[in-house]
Amino acid sequence: MNAPTAHSHLLPQLNLRDVPAALLEDLKSRFGGQFSAALVVREQHGRDESAFDVPPPAAVVFAQSTADVSDAIQLAARYRVPVIPFGVGSSLEGHLLAVQGGISLDVSRMNQVLAINAEDLTVTVQPGVTRKQLNEAVKSAGLFFPIDPGADASIGGMSATRASGTNAVRYGTMRENVLALEVVTASGEVIRTGTRAKKSSAGYDLTRLMVGSEGTLGVMTEITLKLYPLPEAVMAATCSFANLADAVATTIQLIQLGVPIARCELLDANTVRMVNAHSKLSLREGDMLLMEFHGSPDGVREQVQTVQEIAAEFGARAEDGAFEWATTPEERTRLWTARHNAYFAGIQSRPGCKVITTDTCVPISHLADALLDSVREAQDAGLPYFMVGHVGDGNFHMGYLIDPAQPQERELAEQLNHTLVARALRLGGTCTGEHGVGLHKQGFLIDETGSGAVEMMRTIKRALDPHNILNPGKIFSL
Amino acid sequence: MNAPTAHSHLLPQLNLRDVPAALLEDLKSRFGGQFSAALVVREQHGRDESAFDVPPPAAVVFAQSTADVSDAIQLAARYRVPVIPFGVGSSLEGHLLAVQGGISLDVSRMNQVLAINAEDLTVTVQPGVTRKQLNEAVKSAGLFFPIDPGADASIGGMSATRASGTNAVRYGTMRENVLALEVVTASGEVIRTGTRAKKSSAGYDLTRLMVGSEGTLGVMTEITLKLYPLPEAVMAATCSFANLADAVATTIQLIQLGVPIARCELLDANTVRMVNAHSKLSLREGDMLLMEFHGSPDGVREQVQTVQEIAAEFGARAEDGAFEWATTPEERTRLWTARHNAYFAGIQSRPGCKVITTDTCVPISHLADALLDSVREAQDAGLPYFMVGHVGDGNFHMGYLIDPAQPQERELAEQLNHTLVARALRLGGTCTGEHGVGLHKQGFLIDETGSGAVEMMRTIKRALDPHNILNPGKIFSL
Repeated sequence: MNAPTAHSHLLPQLNLRDVPAALLEDLKSRFGGQFSAALVVREQHGRDESAFDVPPPAAVVFAQSTADVSDAIQLAARYRVPVIPFGVGSSLEGHLLAVQGGISLDVSRMNQVLAINAEDLTVTVQPGVTRKQLNEAVKSAGLFFPIDPGADASIGGMSATRASGTNAVRYGTMRENVLALEVVTASGEVIRTGTRAKKSSAGYDLTRLMVGSEGTLGVMTEITLKLYPLPEAVMAATCSFANLADAVATTIQLIQLGVPIARCELLDANTVRMVNAHSKLSLREGDMLLMEFHGSPDGVREQVQTVQEIAAEFGARAEDGAFEWATTPEERTRLWTARHNAYFAGIQSRPGCKVITTDTCVPISHLADALLDSVREAQDAGLPYFMVGHVGDGNFHMGYLIDPAQPQERELAEQLNHTLVARALRLGGTCTGEHGVGLHKQGFLIDETGSGAVEMMRTIKRALDPHNILNPGKIFSL
Repeated sequence: MNAPTAHSHLLPQLNLRDVPAALLEDLKSRFGGQFSAALVVREQHGRDESAFDVPPPAAVVFAQSTADVSDAIQLAARYRVPVIPFGVGSSLEGHLLAVQGGISLDVSRMNQVLAINAEDLTVTVQPGVTRKQLNEAVKSAGLFFPIDPGADASIGGMSATRASGTNAVRYGTMRENVLALEVVTASGEVIRTGTRAKKSSAGYDLTRLMVGSEGTLGVMTEITLKLYPLPEAVMAATCSFANLADAVATTIQLIQLGVPIARCELLDANTVRMVNAHSKLSLREGDMLLMEFHGSPDGVREQVQTVQEIAAEFGARAEDGAFEWATTPEERTRLWTARHNAYFAGIQSRPGCKVITTDTCVPISHLADALLDSVREAQDAGLPYFMVGHVGDGNFHMGYLIDPAQPQERELAEQLNHTLVARALRLGGTCTGEHGVGLHKQGFLIDETGSGAVEMMRTIKRALDPHNILNPGKIFSL
């Protein structure tokens, strides 16, 4: 780990490149009604869930096929104009913002599930398919896709940011669950990476190079994913603790014992209050683990028993009513919807606010060190916040709720963020467990991995995208 | 998939580059006793388990530290001389052969286990640590490292070839189990990739770009791996079938049902005979699954029951004695040692032979299509062979046992190989599940992934190793 740099929290630097009128004419002539330069459409494609304001792209192309993607990129390449892939706009890190100008390439209409291979537990989709749409499509085959970042994100966006979410503790992230890709390169060429085989040693792992590359190395046009059999038995529970430290200690122990828990989420009492208000629930207002268990009926019983024993050691006893169970699918959906809406519950708790989100992930033994101080620092600073954690992975998010009219609040949030990230890096962790680097974490990335690794990333980028047209200015400056 | 090319089975093309005497002097002066140009040492470093004969490297450097690796690469880079990393020499695909001349960089003396983080289930090792050494080192912490390619390979070599083996069906391959790396680049720079966090979205996945790159992009000097708690209960069994088709059908069904089996290996009757002769065992001489189950006692019982029910559907009934159980650690070790020695059992069955090994991996639903025809074709051709399969992954190996004095046998083996690979690719599979491309599968790689993806690999290679000094000529021609 390198010493944290001072530039970690600067606002995005704009370097608006020229978008020649001739390119817009060419795009209009090629794409007709799939092309728009209307301000409202551009503005819709020029913002995401991040807290930045950046001028919108010069135009939007709505791709409906791989050929559309290839043609749009070839035209843009001719004029050296940036192309920014767009799914549903749920990025938190400014991935979609046109910091170097250019055009937005909206793939949301590429939303076909192309092939369900139920007997192989694989599916091939276009990038605009959303995770909920995918799960609807494979449900009747008795299968599901577990990666679940909360938002109903597109599979393309999830792949591009290496997303994960609540089920990752058991099922892994997009890193583990993308098998193969069709990708359009910076020259407009269509290539394929990977196969439907479960494992392979066939050359460089281009699939995993593309996954998490945030649209800077290619635009994914087909994505082959792993699926899983719907578990025979599912149980979900909340468990309330007297304090955050006990909830974290319970988490650490159940991970260290290898309990194959499917979801293990933490909300502090403050966030439980926000979620109750937003989702009209009556969860007990304390520091709380939300858990889910998948398996055979016996297997689930065994996991539940182990977790109850561990929680009891940290003061949360089933016989004292610490556990509440959600056994029916409806109860479970209600619980997890509330969890997924924690972000919006936070925003609603302070009308008009913007959110600065953190995303550190640390080795599980350091979770208490990383998390407890971070919450305490936010409380001491008096800044409104929410805290949710995929704690089974060692990953948690602080969302600092700032008043955009008060620059000192943004400054304070960034200071807290900076302290929190520096601590996570000292503990052997990463600045971003699942949201990606985008604009906001470029300084942190250098702090984390060192300038040598970032320079290797730049070298790869320059080699694969010599005119720097694919989502430029993201991950690192270039 | 592209049409198979005719060049898939050519012998390696030599392009011996000059190794200036000045470099050898520089290396000798820097490394003293860690440098050798003795023929016996060079020859030992100029061959592996592949069937190729290539002149040995010009010299061998025995690195003992990251600084040694960096200095050796910097000196070689100055003279544009190839550097070939060497672990224990168990590669099957010619990875170690000096097809463009150069020096061998032996890292086997870098064999320290640097840090066991038991509470995080991670370990950091130097590249020369072997998998058996690693498992000895972590056993007392109640942990194990599951990746098990048979040979007592080095962790560096296993990472470089994206190895897997018998436990991959449950625990994944090196792709899923390497968390972080220290790597020396082609310029001698030392970089770090990844952290000890379980997941990360921090920029390009350089860790997985290096894993499987066969020493062509950098030399790994530290490797951080995932570990797993030793299972509470372990049971191993053999199950004999009336024919190969029933054994394969059983495998397919238990994978499709999501049984979390830890090992699921197939040997045909011919191979069981060889193993019995080599390991002095008395396994029933039929087509056989070797299985292992990990979990809680109840969990293991549940898995065993499910597998017995499935096997019975395909004629292998427990009450008819189809199953034999190895319950003690000693019995299990004996069984798996015999399995791991199948390769040597095959060689021993035909003294003086060489082996041409195949390594296809297909989606599980196509395992029968891929495997049964391949075995039949070998039998029809009358060429001695062995067949072992990590069938739970859809991966199996034919080992054609050829007399090196009979060129027509090599030609016949390559024809069988070619037919087998073309079929696997048609079925959506890969030409190499775990051995890597090396020299032998370069044509197959193009057939599998298309020239666009291979050209992208070349572009990355040129960018990261502009003088083409890191293990040149492997994976693709350059």
